[in-house]
Amino acid sequence: MTARPGGRSARVRAAVIDATFAELAEGGYLRLTVENVATRAGVHKTTVYRRWGTVDELIADALEHSRDADWPVPDTGSVEGDLIAVADDVARTFADPARRTAPVAVVAAALQSSRAREAMARFYADRHRRAAEVVSRAVARGELPATTDAVELIRLTCAPLFYRVFVTGEPVDREVAERSARAALAAARAGLL
Amino acid sequence: MTARPGGRSARVRAAVIDATFAELAEGGYLRLTVENVATRAGVHKTTVYRRWGTVDELIADALEHSRDADWPVPDTGSVEGDLIAVADDVARTFADPARRTAPVAVVAAALQSSRAREAMARFYADRHRRAAEVVSRAVARGELPATTDAVELIRLTCAPLFYRVFVTGEPVDREVAERSARAALAAARAGLL
Repeated sequence: MTARPGGRSARVRAAVIDATFAELAEGGYLRLTVENVATRAGVHKTTVYRRWGTVDELIADALEHSRDADWPVPDTGSVEGDLIAVADDVARTFADPARRTAPVAVVAAALQSSRAREAMARFYADRHRRAAEVVSRAVARGELPATTDAVELIRLTCAPLFYRVFVTGEPVDREVAERSARAALAAARAGLL
Repeated sequence: MTARPGGRSARVRAAVIDATFAELAEGGYLRLTVENVATRAGVHKTTVYRRWGTVDELIADALEHSRDADWPVPDTGSVEGDLIAVADDVARTFADPARRTAPVAVVAAALQSSRAREAMARFYADRHRRAAEVVSRAVARGELPATTDAVELIRLTCAPLFYRVFVTGEPVDREVAERSARAALAAARAGLL
């Protein structure tokens, strides 16, 4: 590929990725087609077929793009505040009908396609790695044992929210986010992570 | 319905439910059809259509049947042992390629169908309620505060395993089960649940 950043190739990619998320939001994974993405993006469908090929590839590329996007790591001054902010970001996403559609569609896609599954795994591994910064800061401040597995603490902070959304079908809100974050922190303070 | 327990109607239901799980295991939610379930169950397809109607109804009924089935609540003598047993049961299910297909297919179905979603929510609510017995026993033994939210403790015990399976794509094993159970217990002991 010879595209300069900001060139035509990058503009096409941005339009196709936006269209992929918009189509996923409207119809979910099962109704996603290369044709509809191309139409919505205003791009010829042969261009989309040539560059992406399949809907799974579109989803994978959309996830890589999101992964590269800025995601501000919370910095509230305390590890409790930071972990609550991480959990609350998840809760807000899933409590918002417009924002929840993309991550829900991605989980659905991952259940059907190994390409989407790998892209999702890389996406969350990257998010965990970034969020782990709140743990290194806490260790530096003496709030947590230096042996704390930072990524495991982030996993335990987020897991109860995803469990409600995808398994038990229970609502998520600020209270659930706070309880999840504090519970994970208690385990870390007890030296269990 | 006029069926006696163990009568023809119950035998048909059992055969259809077995066939539903077997078809889900083989092809997943997207390839499940009433025709294939009927053929595998050795039942005429009009019988299945009349009694269940759709694949979503088949999945919902299969889940109700599983919900009614015996599920032995662990009783190891300590709340830590019991919670580890609950978590390890989840880990073993998802680590086993043959056993994981049904719960994975159910989550996939729930993402596409509100009928399946409701049935799944009822299934897990019932499992949580049963598993909560390990918490009441722990409270009776003085191992946990009487104010402990028993179902929340079960949720936190199981959530990290489901998070790995459905979101991060990371493996689950005995070690993950033990860490999840001990982390949840630390939060309960700290009076956070």
